[in-house]
Amino acid sequence: MEKLGPNSVNSCPLTPLGFLERAGTVFADSPSIIYHDTVFTWSQTLRRCLRLASALVSLGISRRDVVSVIAPNVPAMYEMHFGVPMSGAVLNNINTRLDARTVAVLLRHSRSKLVFVDPASLHLLRDALRLLPVDHPAPRVILIEDPYEKQFPPAPADTLTYERLLENNGDPEFVWIRPASEWDPIVLNYTSGTTSAPKGVVHCHRGIFLVTMDSIADWSVPRRPFLWTLPMFHGNGWSYTWGMAVVGGANVCLRRFDAAAIYAAVARHGVTHLCAASVVLTMLANYRVLHPVVPTSSSSSSAAAAASGKKKEVKKQKVHILTSAASPPPAVLSRVEALGFEVSHGYGMTEVGGMVVSCTWNPDWDALPVADRARLKARQGVRTAGVAEVDVVDADTGRSVPRDGYTMGEIVLRGACVMLGYLNDKKATKAVVREDGWFYTGDVAVVHPDGYLQIRDRSKDIIISGGENISSVEVESVIYSHPAVSEVAVVARPDEFWGETPLRLRRSQKR
Amino acid sequence: MEKLGPNSVNSCPLTPLGFLERAGTVFADSPSIIYHDTVFTWSQTLRRCLRLASALVSLGISRRDVVSVIAPNVPAMYEMHFGVPMSGAVLNNINTRLDARTVAVLLRHSRSKLVFVDPASLHLLRDALRLLPVDHPAPRVILIEDPYEKQFPPAPADTLTYERLLENNGDPEFVWIRPASEWDPIVLNYTSGTTSAPKGVVHCHRGIFLVTMDSIADWSVPRRPFLWTLPMFHGNGWSYTWGMAVVGGANVCLRRFDAAAIYAAVARHGVTHLCAASVVLTMLANYRVLHPVVPTSSSSSSAAAAASGKKKEVKKQKVHILTSAASPPPAVLSRVEALGFEVSHGYGMTEVGGMVVSCTWNPDWDALPVADRARLKARQGVRTAGVAEVDVVDADTGRSVPRDGYTMGEIVLRGACVMLGYLNDKKATKAVVREDGWFYTGDVAVVHPDGYLQIRDRSKDIIISGGENISSVEVESVIYSHPAVSEVAVVARPDEFWGETPLRLRRSQKR
Repeated sequence: MEKLGPNSVNSCPLTPLGFLERAGTVFADSPSIIYHDTVFTWSQTLRRCLRLASALVSLGISRRDVVSVIAPNVPAMYEMHFGVPMSGAVLNNINTRLDARTVAVLLRHSRSKLVFVDPASLHLLRDALRLLPVDHPAPRVILIEDPYEKQFPPAPADTLTYERLLENNGDPEFVWIRPASEWDPIVLNYTSGTTSAPKGVVHCHRGIFLVTMDSIADWSVPRRPFLWTLPMFHGNGWSYTWGMAVVGGANVCLRRFDAAAIYAAVARHGVTHLCAASVVLTMLANYRVLHPVVPTSSSSSSAAAAASGKKKEVKKQKVHILTSAASPPPAVLSRVEALGFEVSHGYGMTEVGGMVVSCTWNPDWDALPVADRARLKARQGVRTAGVAEVDVVDADTGRSVPRDGYTMGEIVLRGACVMLGYLNDKKATKAVVREDGWFYTGDVAVVHPDGYLQIRDRSKDIIISGGENISSVEVESVIYSHPAVSEVAVVARPDEFWGETPLRLRRSQKR
Repeated sequence: MEKLGPNSVNSCPLTPLGFLERAGTVFADSPSIIYHDTVFTWSQTLRRCLRLASALVSLGISRRDVVSVIAPNVPAMYEMHFGVPMSGAVLNNINTRLDARTVAVLLRHSRSKLVFVDPASLHLLRDALRLLPVDHPAPRVILIEDPYEKQFPPAPADTLTYERLLENNGDPEFVWIRPASEWDPIVLNYTSGTTSAPKGVVHCHRGIFLVTMDSIADWSVPRRPFLWTLPMFHGNGWSYTWGMAVVGGANVCLRRFDAAAIYAAVARHGVTHLCAASVVLTMLANYRVLHPVVPTSSSSSSAAAAASGKKKEVKKQKVHILTSAASPPPAVLSRVEALGFEVSHGYGMTEVGGMVVSCTWNPDWDALPVADRARLKARQGVRTAGVAEVDVVDADTGRSVPRDGYTMGEIVLRGACVMLGYLNDKKATKAVVREDGWFYTGDVAVVHPDGYLQIRDRSKDIIISGGENISSVEVESVIYSHPAVSEVAVVARPDEFWGETPLRLRRSQKR
């Protein structure tokens, strides 16, 4: 027993890239990506990603080089998640909403060798490149053209575009470059850093493989159309980018969206699942107040047609939404579920690669009144099966808080999905990946008697008033429960007597 | 980028044992195990397993010690899969159908410190113990009493039974012993070894964690009753033992079963999923020929009551069956599916911990005639997402066979689920876990043009007749397609002229 350990066969590195190789066989002729009238199949996507990987190698990209992309949810953006690391490189997907100064900081910090850019972000990128120091080697820029966006001028004939790169330099039979170790980096994601410089989260092949499998086990997605409203640049779409290749569903891509576009895409493609920030739930609920009739699957997919509101009643079609980040207020949850959406709620962050806490639903709760159901679903929940441990601890003592639904503490966790660290930032890494074996999330939560945790705040957003901790989220939640409230934000304002008091920012909407 | 690697948080060892800890919270009051009128919940199962682990420690069991169990699918058998490794020990579940001589060999080879035994296997174990060499330290024996089996005399009051061990020595608050490394052994399974001495397959925590998550992603089981017809001692129930704690379904245990008992359990408990060898499909199909009416959920659960065939028509209830090992003949598949069972088909072996190849269904095939559907489903399929690579190679050249559905080769694979090796058997390990990085399965298959593989034979069962390879499975499959054939086996018989010719063993049944 003592003598047995890793061997030549079972130490083969874990990597999510093999998901696509398998999908190219098992889902060969099934749709992989749908964008307007463009439909790719999984065997095509595999071959396109192999072309991309080989083309990158032909341009001199090698192991651990960083390749960046600034693009919305277009087909190329999906392909990057496989094609770039299949060349051995590290994918860095950049938020399209950043300003030029920040983009310049990221390109410099990551030492990007190459940047793929969407036409809509070309000006942003050019501005960013001008802000790079003169002695900084300029990354190569490759434009991802979009035939559906006529407002952008076509690239000059002698410019290497994304499609020309695949066509001219790509080898669809390329033997993709496997990681030498499962701890090799695969992706680099910069977090926004509200108060400090952006931090580059580096994940390895092992971590992404595991968080992907774990997420699929927790919120299982079928071999059906999946709508990309969540930006893929946001934590790699909570790793469902790679996950879609596991289950073989179609990635329905949208460059931009509003509630009308979501309803239209659902109707046109028969979408069953989507991931979205909680603000999207608010959008969906509000839209239906104004537009009680939504298009059927025979209508056009354009947002305009959807908004025109033809007088046909929609065929009920269950759509599952996974939401994370900010906790959706119970009132919004109730309203969206009444519209026929099935909402699941979880918690994750870029540093852990995806969903690590999930509000696993207990069928017994189905019988509860709607307000109680919403209150239970607003909780973030319990750890997923693939995460080793999650706890909520007192910041001072490091001890677990009692399961009383009242005492606040910081969420800490450990597991294989936690990042390797922040790129070139030992200090920031050490602040969260601590020697005691826990990752410190900076999120403040309580644990209910049944073991489900609920976020009360980011630790820096806690309002300390008269020495008492006030959860800004909890105050928001109460205000949200009023039917006339559409959106609300509560922040601390300095107060001479109390130290801080809550300041309410509210936008009202007539119903 | 170069400097980032495993850290104190993400190098936390992968282990399936945490699944139960999570289940104890998230599925706390849901049924975990159902056996006759006994129903445990997941919080009870967690506490019972912690009791078991702590009790083992109290008896002197320590890391890497082997604890054996000889039992059918009773609750204790399920608990062993968590409770034994939670003590740091290695679980060795022994096939109840072995003879005393073989059991003695296993106990000696594994150096078992302790054996849990079911009353029905007590004589077998006693005979085995008598066959141990006089100088061999006798393992401690602990009886698992079964209150539902009145034919076995109760244990003397001063004997330490399984329940008394949990009650007297167990600590439900025990802090379970995590593996020091994810490569630490967790389970030892002896394979039958038709031609040679039994070989002890050792799996590590990492491998079992991964094959379990992979299996759940591939053949997803809901939070519903799951029927244990597959013996848990058979490759740990293809790792669905651990998997049930991921999804929170109830383990419906059966000490023994026939087709009537399966139909009755399905009706009584609302079973939706079960795993079974293909012979069980034959049983289910044949039973319904003789008993077209099966009991409804209001009937008694006993096999006798079910067989009595009350004249109520059964309420249609979809039951999903995962079958593996021998390929089910297309004819049997058709008949079982016509009865309302949804059959999935895969391939695995003890050495890989569970299912590694799966006949993923293409919805396009639904429209095909039943015979074509059955033919497609009889194929083993493609690798699951968690397995790195599967190939079918020519034994001489090592090259992949063409995808022609005709050329036979040996199935080889690599991935994290492959065993650490055979216990104390370097030679046997080296024969299958080869230096070239592949595990050699010894199974002979073809690859169809769509990439799905189909087993033709065990390499040693291939019939070589006139220099041509004849697949015994293929000949069986043709004979099976005749409606009068219930079971058939084809083996080689020596022939002066041809070298070998097929010999057909057949059992006919009037319809």
